[in-house]
Amino acid sequence: MDVFLEKNRGVLLAYDQGLEHGPTDFNERNFDPAFIMRLAVEGKFNSIIFQKGLAEKYYDGRVPLIIKVNGKTNLVKGEPIARQNCSVKHAAKLGAKAVGYTIYPGSAHENVMLEEFGRIQEEAHALNIAAIAWIYPRGEATKNDTAPEVIAYAARVGLEAGADAVKIKYSGTVDAFKWAVKCAGKAKVFMSGGPKAETDADFLRQVRGAIDAGASGLAVGRNVWQSADPLKMARALRALVIEDRSVEEALRA
Amino acid sequence: MDVFLEKNRGVLLAYDQGLEHGPTDFNERNFDPAFIMRLAVEGKFNSIIFQKGLAEKYYDGRVPLIIKVNGKTNLVKGEPIARQNCSVKHAAKLGAKAVGYTIYPGSAHENVMLEEFGRIQEEAHALNIAAIAWIYPRGEATKNDTAPEVIAYAARVGLEAGADAVKIKYSGTVDAFKWAVKCAGKAKVFMSGGPKAETDADFLRQVRGAIDAGASGLAVGRNVWQSADPLKMARALRALVIEDRSVEEALRA
Amino acid sequence: MDVFLEKNRGVLLAYDQGLEHGPTDFNERNFDPAFIMRLAVEGKFNSIIFQKGLAEKYYDGRVPLIIKVNGKTNLVKGEPIARQNCSVKHAAKLGAKAVGYTIYPGSAHENVMLEEFGRIQEEAHALNIAAIAWIYPRGEATKNDTAPEVIAYAARVGLEAGADAVKIKYSGTVDAFKWAVKCAGKAKVFMSGGPKAETDADFLRQVRGAIDAGASGLAVGRNVWQSADPLKMARALRALVIEDRSVEEALRA
Amino acid sequence: MDVFLEKNRGVLLAYDQGLEHGPTDFNERNFDPAFIMRLAVEGKFNSIIFQKGLAEKYYDGRVPLIIKVNGKTNLVKGEPIARQNCSVKHAAKLGAKAVGYTIYPGSAHENVMLEEFGRIQEEAHALNIAAIAWIYPRGEATKNDTAPEVIAYAARVGLEAGADAVKIKYSGTVDAFKWAVKCAGKAKVFMSGGPKAETDADFLRQVRGAIDAGASGLAVGRNVWQSADPLKMARALRALVIEDRSVEEALRA
Amino acid sequence: MDVFLEKNRGVLLAYDQGLEHGPTDFNERNFDPAFIMRLAVEGKFNSIIFQKGLAEKYYDGRVPLIIKVNGKTNLVKGEPIARQNCSVKHAAKLGAKAVGYTIYPGSAHENVMLEEFGRIQEEAHALNIAAIAWIYPRGEATKNDTAPEVIAYAARVGLEAGADAVKIKYSGTVDAFKWAVKCAGKAKVFMSGGPKAETDADFLRQVRGAIDAGASGLAVGRNVWQSADPLKMARALRALVIEDRSVEEALRA
Repeated sequence: MDVFLEKNRGVLLAYDQGLEHGPTDFNERNFDPAFIMRLAVEGKFNSIIFQKGLAEKYYDGRVPLIIKVNGKTNLVKGEPIARQNCSVKHAAKLGAKAVGYTIYPGSAHENVMLEEFGRIQEEAHALNIAAIAWIYPRGEATKNDTAPEVIAYAARVGLEAGADAVKIKYSGTVDAFKWAVKCAGKAKVFMSGGPKAETDADFLRQVRGAIDAGASGLAVGRNVWQSADPLKMARALRALVIEDRSVEEALRA
Repeated sequence: MDVFLEKNRGVLLAYDQGLEHGPTDFNERNFDPAFIMRLAVEGKFNSIIFQKGLAEKYYDGRVPLIIKVNGKTNLVKGEPIARQNCSVKHAAKLGAKAVGYTIYPGSAHENVMLEEFGRIQEEAHALNIAAIAWIYPRGEATKNDTAPEVIAYAARVGLEAGADAVKIKYSGTVDAFKWAVKCAGKAKVFMSGGPKAETDADFLRQVRGAIDAGASGLAVGRNVWQSADPLKMARALRALVIEDRSVEEALRA
Repeated sequence: MDVFLEKNRGVLLAYDQGLEHGPTDFNERNFDPAFIMRLAVEGKFNSIIFQKGLAEKYYDGRVPLIIKVNGKTNLVKGEPIARQNCSVKHAAKLGAKAVGYTIYPGSAHENVMLEEFGRIQEEAHALNIAAIAWIYPRGEATKNDTAPEVIAYAARVGLEAGADAVKIKYSGTVDAFKWAVKCAGKAKVFMSGGPKAETDADFLRQVRGAIDAGASGLAVGRNVWQSADPLKMARALRALVIEDRSVEEALRA
Repeated sequence: MDVFLEKNRGVLLAYDQGLEHGPTDFNERNFDPAFIMRLAVEGKFNSIIFQKGLAEKYYDGRVPLIIKVNGKTNLVKGEPIARQNCSVKHAAKLGAKAVGYTIYPGSAHENVMLEEFGRIQEEAHALNIAAIAWIYPRGEATKNDTAPEVIAYAARVGLEAGADAVKIKYSGTVDAFKWAVKCAGKAKVFMSGGPKAETDADFLRQVRGAIDAGASGLAVGRNVWQSADPLKMARALRALVIEDRSVEEALRA
Repeated sequence: MDVFLEKNRGVLLAYDQGLEHGPTDFNERNFDPAFIMRLAVEGKFNSIIFQKGLAEKYYDGRVPLIIKVNGKTNLVKGEPIARQNCSVKHAAKLGAKAVGYTIYPGSAHENVMLEEFGRIQEEAHALNIAAIAWIYPRGEATKNDTAPEVIAYAARVGLEAGADAVKIKYSGTVDAFKWAVKCAGKAKVFMSGGPKAETDADFLRQVRGAIDAGASGLAVGRNVWQSADPLKMARALRALVIEDRSVEEALRA
């Protein structure tokens, strides 16, 4: 994971929304993976997260690469499941320093994803790349997927499953997230950026909370590339996460 | 994909309808794959698209070959799924320059097809042949499968999944399709010909729209081989797509 | 397929009913595979069709062998599915010149069988044996499984899937079946004998119709071995199919 | 199968009830596999049938071994299915001369078991050990699982599937079972002992019926080891099955 | 199994609750696998039980390791299933002397787990490590999962499946558990610690009952690390289990 960290922190630029949510997330600029690739470089992100299709056609090697090796559209209803769509070997050949994989604990198909991640993690480590788990509790029994106990559980699932790092949603308060970070143990925690917040300050306060709680950073997409000034947001996030500044300082970065 | 292109455009002759729709699509002439093979040559199509059974028995090498490696009948109801029925190795041995594979995003079985295409794409590229994704959103949650946002999503799924090209339906207007083409990024876009249009002009106007929107061409079956004069339609399509003529010029070609 | 043909026609003796329908199809003589094996020889059939269990214990090499490599009982209800129960390699070792496989288009499990047949066909051809598809449209959406368009669709599925020959039910008239034969293209067509007809003449008229429509022959079981005089029926079928005689001539053969 | 036969007959001691029915079948003596192993030797049984767990810990080599390679508990409801839980290679290494496998024709999962048995049979024969099929029609459509036509069908399924021997329930009369034996052809038939009969004579009459009908013997568990005097019952069964004695003579053996 | 035993008894420290139940089981101290690792050493436990994620990051080799190779969250409803998430080879590489696997007999997915455990057991033994089965009857038909006959059945399933040891719940009385131990035969029996008991004495009385019934020991988690004085409880358990002391003596240990 060191390749993704500066001062033991990292700001990862996520761009798998094209598959997960569809182009309704995009505008006339950010639909373009080349724009995002440049943004990753110019914004000094610690990693760029692509599905293999984007990595093959747009990745230029100037930022460490994470390949998301599963994914689903949001057109499907019912208990969520996403299966491996890129071999670990192929990801490594494309230059990935980590593979990312989403597990939906609570889904009726949880067992398929836990099994698949287990195999992927071993293959990744055999090739000296990291295995990062996106962990989103779902399914009929998950009433509130950002409840403190749900997020702490998500973090723990990642640790137990052998993830080098987990990507989880923010659970609302520093204390709540601190518990999640503790439960993740030696697995690093990255906050999931989530949908565009109302204001930059709103978003940065969440990130500040996550960092204060002990997170190693965040994986952020929409709150950067849907921003009116993505590079400004990138600077703010670096200031806050890497340089450990306050929200106010970060906003002025 | 270059083998399928002239002046960076291509008109591909699709003929997998025998499996997908059954012989109700056929008349006394076009039921015969040998007729279609000749038509591909005489109509100067940039590719012919066959299931392996047709390729094995009728393909004569005079036009670049795409083998469709999955397919389903229209006798099945419920959430659509089509599984691989031809190995990539076998397709290559038959002379295919690309394999085609249908993904139905939104189907409850979407994950199976995304996984299978992921593997097929890697195998194809290892053998130096292209991987083309037919992408048709379906399933309970897809109310309108040619809505602009649905087609743009389809295009994007193909890009993210690593397709060299996507085959998608026309979304009704140049502007709508332009968005789909943008979302497909560096994956080439081929408009799906669809059912026989009322008049040749109607169909050509759609094709013109797709080309104006940035498509690389189209994959067309019924609108050619159900035509009273298939070679005339072939000439029209070449004029419009390859030579970039207007609908009126194309109709006179 | 040549090994199964005389004058480009073939009469294949089918005997997989023990698995498909159970012994209610049998009488005190025809329950015995040894009786059927002798009948195949004495009746000069062009092939005998066995499940592997019968081939292992009763096949004596005097008639070309087809091994059915999937099958199901009629005790199961619901959407039909039959999976491979004999490897192609094993079939070849037992002396089979072809493997037979049933596909039920329209079944919710159609995709499993299309995939499996696809693999089996490649394996069979690699071992220089033929792949024959039994194609029986089924499932909730198939109201009439001998309707002309359904049988023509069945024939086409076999061609597209890469079958060397298809075994399909008779669709009632010469014209209807002619369409099916056309749709099967270069895949040979064998009429499925089906349940015992009321009279020999009734059955032979169907066979005559199939041959007149262009079929290469038939695969027949119950109408031979449930007959009071199986060898007489065998002579009649050879006269009609191989020697191209009329129903009346055949009945006197 | 010769290793399991004396004078072409065999009495096999079945002891897989611990998995299939649970310890409610056991008393203070017969719960112990070591007791059963001794009983197999002292009772001169022609084979002992164990799941691999018992074979590994209790089998001493003094009686030919059959390993049951699938099984299920009776705690599960719904359409029955039992999957392979012991590799054929492992069974052979443990000294098994045959593997046993249960198929439930009529179950919605019939296809899985027919496929799995097909593979297991080929593996077993490659290692020179026999493949025995336990065949119990089940599922929603099987109203009476000992009806003569159901048992005859079961026998036939085994023959067609390539079993060296089938284990089936008694169908009530000599004539009914004779039909089953005929339908099993060259596959040997072993009657399934079933639950403890009211009296020894009742049970022996069933066995006599099966032998008179042409069975090669029986696989018996509860009627021996739930007996007050298991060795007496063993003697009776040997007298009846191997020495072809009457029920009365057997009871005095 | 000898590596886990002293005087033929063992007290195993279980810590897979983070995956199975989530962090609601944890407090500010026991959430930390490093705390548990130290506790295993200082408490002189005969083994520590981790999921692979914890073993990779926290195991220090000072106590024999068991890796749990399947697991599920309690967020999922419906018929339980847990699939293999760690290869046996990987477990061995991490230093495990045994792999643990949960089977839920009675679940609709029982067949998947019996099959998977069967394969895992063979792989483990090939690498000279033990295979331990956690056996918890579940599913619609299991009304009371600690009923004497249910626990005895669980024990037997493990023996038949080839487990070196089984981990089962206590069935309430010495006599009831004695029956389970008998049914487990040569497979060692470890009582499952279960949720925190009201008092230490309550819990120790259960353990004493299990030992008196013939169990080889217990696998205990919450009753130790949720205890106010975990080392005291560890001493008590060692006194009772290894030194065979009474509950009263143990409480004073």
